[in-house]
Amino acid sequence: MYVVMDTNVTDKQVDTVLGALHHFGLAPRREDSEDGVVLNTDGDSPREILGSIRAMPGVLQAGNLWPPYRLPARRHQAADTQIRIGPVTIGGERLAIFAGPCSVENEEMVYALARQVKAAGAVGLRGGAFKPRTSPYSFQGLGQSALKTLRGAADENGLLVITEVLDTRHVEMMTQYADILQVGSRSMENYPLLREVGRSGKPAMLKRGRSATIEEWLQAAEYIMVEGNNNVILCERGIRTFEGLTRNTLDISAIPVVKALSHLPILADPSHGTGLRDKVLPMSRAAVAAGADGLLIEVHAQPDQALSDGAQSIRPEQLIRLMTEVDGIAKVIGRRC
Amino acid sequence: MYVVMDTNVTDKQVDTVLGALHHFGLAPRREDSEDGVVLNTDGDSPREILGSIRAMPGVLQAGNLWPPYRLPARRHQAADTQIRIGPVTIGGERLAIFAGPCSVENEEMVYALARQVKAAGAVGLRGGAFKPRTSPYSFQGLGQSALKTLRGAADENGLLVITEVLDTRHVEMMTQYADILQVGSRSMENYPLLREVGRSGKPAMLKRGRSATIEEWLQAAEYIMVEGNNNVILCERGIRTFEGLTRNTLDISAIPVVKALSHLPILADPSHGTGLRDKVLPMSRAAVAAGADGLLIEVHAQPDQALSDGAQSIRPEQLIRLMTEVDGIAKVIGRRC
Amino acid sequence: MYVVMDTNVTDKQVDTVLGALHHFGLAPRREDSEDGVVLNTDGDSPREILGSIRAMPGVLQAGNLWPPYRLPARRHQAADTQIRIGPVTIGGERLAIFAGPCSVENEEMVYALARQVKAAGAVGLRGGAFKPRTSPYSFQGLGQSALKTLRGAADENGLLVITEVLDTRHVEMMTQYADILQVGSRSMENYPLLREVGRSGKPAMLKRGRSATIEEWLQAAEYIMVEGNNNVILCERGIRTFEGLTRNTLDISAIPVVKALSHLPILADPSHGTGLRDKVLPMSRAAVAAGADGLLIEVHAQPDQALSDGAQSIRPEQLIRLMTEVDGIAKVIGRRC
Amino acid sequence: MYVVMDTNVTDKQVDTVLGALHHFGLAPRREDSEDGVVLNTDGDSPREILGSIRAMPGVLQAGNLWPPYRLPARRHQAADTQIRIGPVTIGGERLAIFAGPCSVENEEMVYALARQVKAAGAVGLRGGAFKPRTSPYSFQGLGQSALKTLRGAADENGLLVITEVLDTRHVEMMTQYADILQVGSRSMENYPLLREVGRSGKPAMLKRGRSATIEEWLQAAEYIMVEGNNNVILCERGIRTFEGLTRNTLDISAIPVVKALSHLPILADPSHGTGLRDKVLPMSRAAVAAGADGLLIEVHAQPDQALSDGAQSIRPEQLIRLMTEVDGIAKVIGRRC
Repeated sequence: MYVVMDTNVTDKQVDTVLGALHHFGLAPRREDSEDGVVLNTDGDSPREILGSIRAMPGVLQAGNLWPPYRLPARRHQAADTQIRIGPVTIGGERLAIFAGPCSVENEEMVYALARQVKAAGAVGLRGGAFKPRTSPYSFQGLGQSALKTLRGAADENGLLVITEVLDTRHVEMMTQYADILQVGSRSMENYPLLREVGRSGKPAMLKRGRSATIEEWLQAAEYIMVEGNNNVILCERGIRTFEGLTRNTLDISAIPVVKALSHLPILADPSHGTGLRDKVLPMSRAAVAAGADGLLIEVHAQPDQALSDGAQSIRPEQLIRLMTEVDGIAKVIGRRC
Repeated sequence: MYVVMDTNVTDKQVDTVLGALHHFGLAPRREDSEDGVVLNTDGDSPREILGSIRAMPGVLQAGNLWPPYRLPARRHQAADTQIRIGPVTIGGERLAIFAGPCSVENEEMVYALARQVKAAGAVGLRGGAFKPRTSPYSFQGLGQSALKTLRGAADENGLLVITEVLDTRHVEMMTQYADILQVGSRSMENYPLLREVGRSGKPAMLKRGRSATIEEWLQAAEYIMVEGNNNVILCERGIRTFEGLTRNTLDISAIPVVKALSHLPILADPSHGTGLRDKVLPMSRAAVAAGADGLLIEVHAQPDQALSDGAQSIRPEQLIRLMTEVDGIAKVIGRRC
Repeated sequence: MYVVMDTNVTDKQVDTVLGALHHFGLAPRREDSEDGVVLNTDGDSPREILGSIRAMPGVLQAGNLWPPYRLPARRHQAADTQIRIGPVTIGGERLAIFAGPCSVENEEMVYALARQVKAAGAVGLRGGAFKPRTSPYSFQGLGQSALKTLRGAADENGLLVITEVLDTRHVEMMTQYADILQVGSRSMENYPLLREVGRSGKPAMLKRGRSATIEEWLQAAEYIMVEGNNNVILCERGIRTFEGLTRNTLDISAIPVVKALSHLPILADPSHGTGLRDKVLPMSRAAVAAGADGLLIEVHAQPDQALSDGAQSIRPEQLIRLMTEVDGIAKVIGRRC
Repeated sequence: MYVVMDTNVTDKQVDTVLGALHHFGLAPRREDSEDGVVLNTDGDSPREILGSIRAMPGVLQAGNLWPPYRLPARRHQAADTQIRIGPVTIGGERLAIFAGPCSVENEEMVYALARQVKAAGAVGLRGGAFKPRTSPYSFQGLGQSALKTLRGAADENGLLVITEVLDTRHVEMMTQYADILQVGSRSMENYPLLREVGRSGKPAMLKRGRSATIEEWLQAAEYIMVEGNNNVILCERGIRTFEGLTRNTLDISAIPVVKALSHLPILADPSHGTGLRDKVLPMSRAAVAAGADGLLIEVHAQPDQALSDGAQSIRPEQLIRLMTEVDGIAKVIGRRC
């Protein structure tokens, strides 16, 4: 069993935890290192003891096994990872909002949206060039030409480009156009792809698989990081449950849980998380209130005519209201848009 | 297929929807009543058409079947239900915060907590007298004497009492002590109990079953309302998913979904929803940001020694910080604590 | 950590497990009692060690904590519980098949079905007098008169009666008519009801809650048994998952898992488990192949006109084919219909 | 709304369904083609009507939308697909059993197991060369050298080789060694990989994603088939649910559901489906009883020392008993091992 103490733990708090461990018949050993204070005991402990210890002041984590991931763990790196791309920092005081269409449909649309996204205060332009679609007969994206469109529209407005990569064979080509390579929900366990993205050196956004536990998600992040790429951004986008009124169940509690377990920044995607346009605003507020480092929002000028995901895209004018309310929420917890 | 329009819909919006329905080859009929504007077509429509219509301005709901519940539906009553109990209104501008111990353990504890709960700004005292426990060997609550303790401590501080009822045979007795009868998650489908609570005339709080869809939950509310009791408060408390790091997955998106479908007030219970003390604060913020009408919070002076649910109870001083942050969030959306 | 050895374990097998525990740095103690051989170590062990030990010959169970239930555990009673009711034994070599309508609709229908059910070789007549329905507007059952009908039709044909009890206040009355009181899926966590059924002394059939883990289910059985009633029959009836083509997901693997953990007999209900008439036959075969002690089957002469659950009821002539195929399967594993 | 009639439907049955549709106020049109009889109505119908129609004699399917997949649908091809590879037919009267180690660990082990697998009566050798592991620090497989080992051991014993492909860049190379390319659960939505496997022309086995609905699974099969490769074998391997005592919940009901919706053969993998060695035998019996066309079984001579999945691997001697019992079950429904 191990107990990781907070970085600002007091000696008195450590002594209280040591006393509790002795009380449970365990023989704890204290280890002080540059990573902080850790208490270890031989063997493992039942859930009840772990629960009691986790509830004590100054305790960051307690468990029977080292978590199954290493590099993404807060135990490995206490300070929040901040990813700097040009003038933008992801994981800092300012929230990072990415917005744009689900799919790139044509140049005109993307350039118009990019101006509106910038005006609303977002830092990046999202848009799909290669789309993972459940049916082979659905629109699959425009491919490389869409990447050129995204890059052009983003450059014109001083925005970052984030776009999804599906195939190991595309990674190298896509690094020419994208600032952040998105690994989508369906690819979270595509280990060859995770490794290629890791090797590319580009910042990566790793969406949670729709049926992945938080531990599995952090292990997937490790596949990228083990290749030497520490610039990993997590993105909660909803998990599959029995509830059918929303497309997925956006697991807002994953945000504070990840924040405790990992130093990596985490965004939320309320568009895919709910699949419902009028739920994007309240769930954006909720995600920021829970501590998200930013948002990924689908925007479309005529959502009813979108080639994909129209029902969950908001209109550009709704994005402005969203940014305003989210900024108000952020300020309550010492952040801003 | 039916389409329910917003109460403040414009004629132009109605015409646009009528046009879209004609475009899909349907022959819509417009009905104006005191309940508002509804458009009906013969037969039902595929999901794609429903999705398009739902996304149009001015549309509140669209579906193939009248929702399977009637009395809880916003279609039945457009205005939000506000429940007035003494000086407290649930479902109004001011959030209703209920706090207290998981179980009543002794008089001294409850009186002390009641003072702290009141000082923090809560409107009600929660506490269990009859506890539904997974094992027959666990502490099952102190029963009627606990009810007396709750009533006394609440009265001393001008608080409401909310407590759980488990057994049809207890309903009448409990109405002497409680202001709100709580039907717990395990009892959401205990239809004889729902009917008895309905007949009691007391305001009821109905928690969502851990595997209940939102529709099933609203149908359970109907069992109470069909007995003539319209004072039903809903409470989202987490659903069962595959994720094990949290005790349940608090379905924050259920809050705006219920708000659209029903006129009933809805609270959130982040204590049971996460099972983790340090997640209660961020998830309280998230619930209020998403539009919850209030919160149910477990508080204990010495959580490590609690007879039940210690790991998810916050300390009284943490409740004060929670109320402050939640109040800041509420103000962003025109509400307050 | 504890390790429970099979009742027919050899000394050599015990020595091998002891050696493995020493190899993992643990200091096991061997305890021989009338319950068999158990090995204990101080403290708990990680999942990996438990997995290795569980996979060794002669090991029945290994875990860190005594299972959270006691009376239903095979550790508490090694031999299978066999429940004798008149000439019928549930949990023995012969499978116990119960069949009948979802709801009792009228006398004629029940008497006709009872004859057909008997002719097909079933041992009991099932039928609902009090129905737990999701909507208060659905047919709720005929109540006590339906119980009289069931009793009469069963007696005429030498069948047992099994029927569901919903309300603590009905238990005593129902013991006059039923041979087995069924606690339904929605009531699995209705602890006052479980206790009343326990006190009644009548054999009970406890269905698994649709979102209950196997451990929670066995703990619910304990609520009945702790009142002195050991005649508990379990019934797997499907769990709630994301798959929507079947009404529930019948968890066939729960059958061998329960058989290893508990001495109680277990039936399967493929009618509710699938909700689809033409899946009742293959899933009946599967349940028996996996080791079920019997089946609960909905039968209706005109399923299309049934007042409830018509879509999952088979016709009387289909029951005959079902019994024949199931008997063939049973013989492969040393049992029969 | 569409209604697909059985191929051997009688005119009287068709008339009864037409009458029912008229009764519901619909105006059905009968279409007779080489695919059989289909009844169509304008617009869609609510679930209740669909349920009633599905329950009528002679009805194969009824739905509001053509199923979202085309090539895998039984509507597209009424007769079962039988896949012939050398002397083996998958999807015919004889069950196809594939067995072997989770991972290829060394030559000696694979050659020894291949002999035992053949002696037990299996038709193919399974074994992993490229392993998708949750952690990048776990054993990842021996790669191409493992493929050579598998091919050699299989050829020596007249067995087919089935092995998993993870990466689009490996497909061509692997076709030299494998008879069947397995697309694993984690890759079910890796669309570039599905397309490459389709283009390879090799028979493919497509495992169900652990959170994929049956419809999504059949749509994934379509990605392979749309490239002109009709030799697709499905494999049910368990879905993710809340139950933790089994590694996954093997969805046995998916077997008859797939058989009704699709003409493709379907196997079951009780090793991954349960993760528990002593549950492999009962769940193999259950899968065959439900109509599976074969099994995928993990076998290891010393499971406790396996480099992966030891806890769910059975021993070679257990495979013999499994084949005997499964053969007995198969004979009840007119099949054999």
